[in-house]
Formats: sequence, C-alpha cells, structure tokens
Amino acid sequence: MSHRHTIHSCQRHYGWNNAQQAVLRVAPGDSAEFDVADASGGQLRVDSSAADLGRLDFASVNPLSGPIAVDGAAPGDVLKVTLLEFTPSGWGWTANIPGFGLLADQFGEAALRTWRYEPRSLAPAFFGAHARVPLKPFAGTIGVAPAEPGVHSVVPPRRVGGNMDVRDLSTGTELLLPVEVPDALFSIGDTHAAQGDGEVCGTAIESPMKVAVRFELIKRQPLAYPRFTTNGPVTRHLDGRGYEVTMGIGPDLMQAARAAVSGMVDLIAGRHGIAPIDAYLLCSVCGDLRISEIVDLPNWTVSFYFPRTVFD
Amino acid sequence: MSHRHTIHSCQRHYGWNNAQQAVLRVAPGDSAEFDVADASGGQLRVDSSAADLGRLDFASVNPLSGPIAVDGAAPGDVLKVTLLEFTPSGWGWTANIPGFGLLADQFGEAALRTWRYEPRSLAPAFFGAHARVPLKPFAGTIGVAPAEPGVHSVVPPRRVGGNMDVRDLSTGTELLLPVEVPDALFSIGDTHAAQGDGEVCGTAIESPMKVAVRFELIKRQPLAYPRFTTNGPVTRHLDGRGYEVTMGIGPDLMQAARAAVSGMVDLIAGRHGIAPIDAYLLCSVCGDLRISEIVDLPNWTVSFYFPRTVFD
Repeated sequence: MSHRHTIHSCQRHYGWNNAQQAVLRVAPGDSAEFDVADASGGQLRVDSSAADLGRLDFASVNPLSGPIAVDGAAPGDVLKVTLLEFTPSGWGWTANIPGFGLLADQFGEAALRTWRYEPRSLAPAFFGAHARVPLKPFAGTIGVAPAEPGVHSVVPPRRVGGNMDVRDLSTGTELLLPVEVPDALFSIGDTHAAQGDGEVCGTAIESPMKVAVRFELIKRQPLAYPRFTTNGPVTRHLDGRGYEVTMGIGPDLMQAARAAVSGMVDLIAGRHGIAPIDAYLLCSVCGDLRISEIVDLPNWTVSFYFPRTVFD
Repeated sequence: MSHRHTIHSCQRHYGWNNAQQAVLRVAPGDSAEFDVADASGGQLRVDSSAADLGRLDFASVNPLSGPIAVDGAAPGDVLKVTLLEFTPSGWGWTANIPGFGLLADQFGEAALRTWRYEPRSLAPAFFGAHARVPLKPFAGTIGVAPAEPGVHSVVPPRRVGGNMDVRDLSTGTELLLPVEVPDALFSIGDTHAAQGDGEVCGTAIESPMKVAVRFELIKRQPLAYPRFTTNGPVTRHLDGRGYEVTMGIGPDLMQAARAAVSGMVDLIAGRHGIAPIDAYLLCSVCGDLRISEIVDLPNWTVSFYFPRTVFD
C-alpha cells in the first residue's frame, strides 16, 4: 500500500503539548505511514541485556511520532483513525523495570528478554525453549493533544487517548478520539508485536514497526472517552486450545487483579519449570485481565486468562 | 448421560454455613445432576412483570442446591469440579433491581425482561425485535463452605468460590476450589443462559436448568483462590463480527469501568433506538469488561466489549 505522507522516525516528541509545532498537515481522508520507534527510542537492541536497562536515558524513552495537524479539526469534533497496516521489524524486547508493573513489590529486579520473530508470517514467537507466543501487532499509544496547556507525560493515557495500551488497536480497527484543540495534533507510538489485556509487567513485546493510518473527521460529535470498532474477532490467533484461568476475589479490583496475576505466575512457573520473572513477563505479553463480576457486593471477581496454546 | 446421584430442586439452602447437614454424600469420581432453581427461587416466571420484582421475598432468593459432602475432603485439599452438562429450561429473566448493579445511580427504577429460548439448539435469543443474544449456559454460583462459622450471604463470592459469576464456568470447564472444611460441603446455583464479563446490571439471563458435575479430590494442594481450565475457546459463539468497544480511563478501576459501560449504554441506545434501560440489560447479558492496561501510572484503561453480532 502506498500512502501520501510519510513520517520518519526522527519526527518525534516526548510529551503531549498543544503548543507543539506539527510536523505535517493532512486533510481528512488522507493516509500516512509512520516509522515508529520502540519504547526505548532505539536505546535497546536485540542483543541488549538487563544492565542496559539501568543505563537508559529516560528523557528519550516513549517517543511519539508526530504531531500531525488535521485540517478543520476543532474542539468537540471526533478524529476517526483507521489502522490500515502494520509492518513489523522482526525484533522486540520485554522488560521488568523496577518500581513499574502490577507486581512491582514481588519483582524488584531489572530483567530484559529480547525476541526475534518472523515479520511477514507473524508465526508465534519463541520465549525460551518451550513457550511460543502468538503475535498481533498494534500501537500502544495513539492520541491527540489535550486542551490543558503545558507538557504532559506520555506514560498515562487520558480522555484524548495516548498510552491506552489496548491490544486490539490493530489492523482494521477504527478508533474514535475526542478532539480538544484546533487541528487535533495527532501522535502515535509504542508499537507492540503482542500484549495481553493489562500489560501486567508494564511492557509488551516492544517492537519498532511502520504503521499506516487514515484520518477522517466527524464534526461536532461529543465523546467522553475514545472508543473503537474491531472488524472481526480479536482472540482467534491464541484461543484455540482454551485457557488456564486464575482469579482474585475481594472488595478491591486492583488487589483482586494482583492476586489473579500472582496466581498465574505461580502456576506457570511451577508447572513449566521456568523462573517466576519469566512467567511474569509471559503473562504480560499474552495473558488477559477480565472483570468477571463487578456487582456482587462487596466482593468482585477478577480473572486472568492465559492461553494454553503457548505451552502446547 | 446418566449420573449416579440426583439433587432435586427442593434440596436447597440460602446461606453458606459449614454446620449445615449435607443432603448427599459422594465419593471422589462420582457425578451428580442438580436441578437448579433460578435466582428468584421460582418466584419469577416467564409472564412476570417489574411489579413482581417489588413483591420478591428476599429470604427465598439465590437458593443453592446442596450441600454435598465429598468423602475424604479435608482443609488444604482441592475439590476438582468438572462441569459435564447443562440442560437449560428454555426461559429466563433479566432485571434491574434498584440499588444493585454497576450503574445503580443512573438506573433507579425496577425493570424486568423475560426471555424464551430454544433449549436444545441454543440459537441466539431475541431481546426486543432487533437484538439477538448468543447463549452459553453456565452456573454463576459454585463453591464450598467457608471455614468461618455461621451463616454467610450467598451474594458475594469468597476464596472458596460461591457467586463468582464467571461466564466461562460452562460445559467442559474444570474448576478447582480450595477446601476449608471436612467433606468440603459443595453447593451450586444461580444458573445463567448467558452473561457478559462483569454482569454489569447485576443480573444475567437468569434461568433454571439442570447441571451435571463430576467431583474429584486433589489431596494437600494449597490454592489461594479458585482457578479453572477451559477445554477450548470461550467467545467464538459471539465474536464472529467483532466488537464495539467503549473505554473509561482514569486512576480508579471502578470509575473507569462505570465510564466504559455508561458509554456503551449511550452508544447502543442512540444507534438502535432502544431505551437506555434495555441497552443496560443487554450490556449485562453479552458485553465484556476487560482491563486493557493496569500499569501506566496513574491512569488505567478499562474497556467494554460489545459483540456486533447482536445487532447484525
């Protein structure tokens, strides 16, 4: 597919800011291809080790490609972004970064694993000798500039999108973003070769890749939060053999989620003889956090679904 | 399939209590069929109306079939329950009960919708003129007696199971429950013809049905919470056309879940011209709450997935 516009990897920024100069202006209906850096901004490579994590310059992590000005976009409009095509690089990394992640209290040490995968066939990628992780490339960060002035961290998502880390923002999905500033000021980054719902260790298969998107504008349509439409099923690449499911049950969703993931780490590490840290990273790249019930006062059920195909 | 034991609908109780007399004793390896009442305990019928909700005797709701004593079960063991077969009745109900449900503040009025469905083919069931909801029968409540003495409400789930409302506790699933008392004292109830992850309005398609299960015992295996294994994919009956997905983004998972469901109610009601209360009930019987990311401090992303096949 050829696209009218190309945004190169050097056309990047490190914070949401509605005063930032756009690198390109597009018209509604235009498509563009972004050369998206990995979340380390090129500081990690396929031969990096955990020691390199300690040397990361955090001022240069989480680069975003953009911003793009969309002609005619105004506050109160919706920017429709169709994810046309992902062209993955064939390598990635997954890390435990001390202090970051759902089980940060249990996993205090830095860990880094790197991946090689087949970028065209997207065959399940080996993790160690036994686990194979199904791939589905997507962009973790997609958003527009917030109305509030100043520079805003790229780490948390907001109602204008950003680092939402929704693993179904993949090929064919149509995403609607609420526009808060003139020209919308769209950016994209944080591409992943695979991730489970939750991104529980704090990273996915972080992987540079090219992403092609099309922009459309829906005028004057109020939208509280982003929403999206998938053009088909979202888990068929990994659900064929069913799931192992652990649970957390209690009055706090966060604690229940922690218990569910902790239970899966124990189960996988014990059953397959891998280190708990590796089980934790695996959970992040292919396990799904679901809220099974949120109404049976005072205790909620959070479940963590791990696809059995990974070890089959 | 024939089972050695039958537990009739009159063999029921209304609270977890480890001092309760078992209605039956089984040996590991035995199977049994339970004639499970709906959550109203037979007080609602297919021709009931919202007015009947106000007349419910709440002392007789949420009946559980059991308890069953399992020979040799002791605290620290695991009771393995294989869900062999569901024989649904062909009718059910879904209600909004004031004060109960994720959006109780937005939906203060009692509402009741009843369903008829084909119990053998389990063809998607009509809701109003246009929506058709895929069915997958399961038991909302499955558990064993807690160690703590006294009577415990059947509404909240606990680490020994109970009202977990996990919609994949369906045919073929193997559930492991931590045993806390001698003989385990197993009960089951709250059968549903369909429910989405979250059970957001507080009820599913509440439907009486027969359930056959097999009991096995795993001696001396510590288990913090219940866990289960599915014998295949869990969403293929509804994911063929993909999903509409709304989101909530913020520092509190509960508020984010509320925003995501509220967004879907608005979307469905607006697009399909149905009353918001009907959109809310539909969300409960077939929409799924997922935690998309739980690590991008300080904001989490909760997504609500509604299967597009329902209106296709």
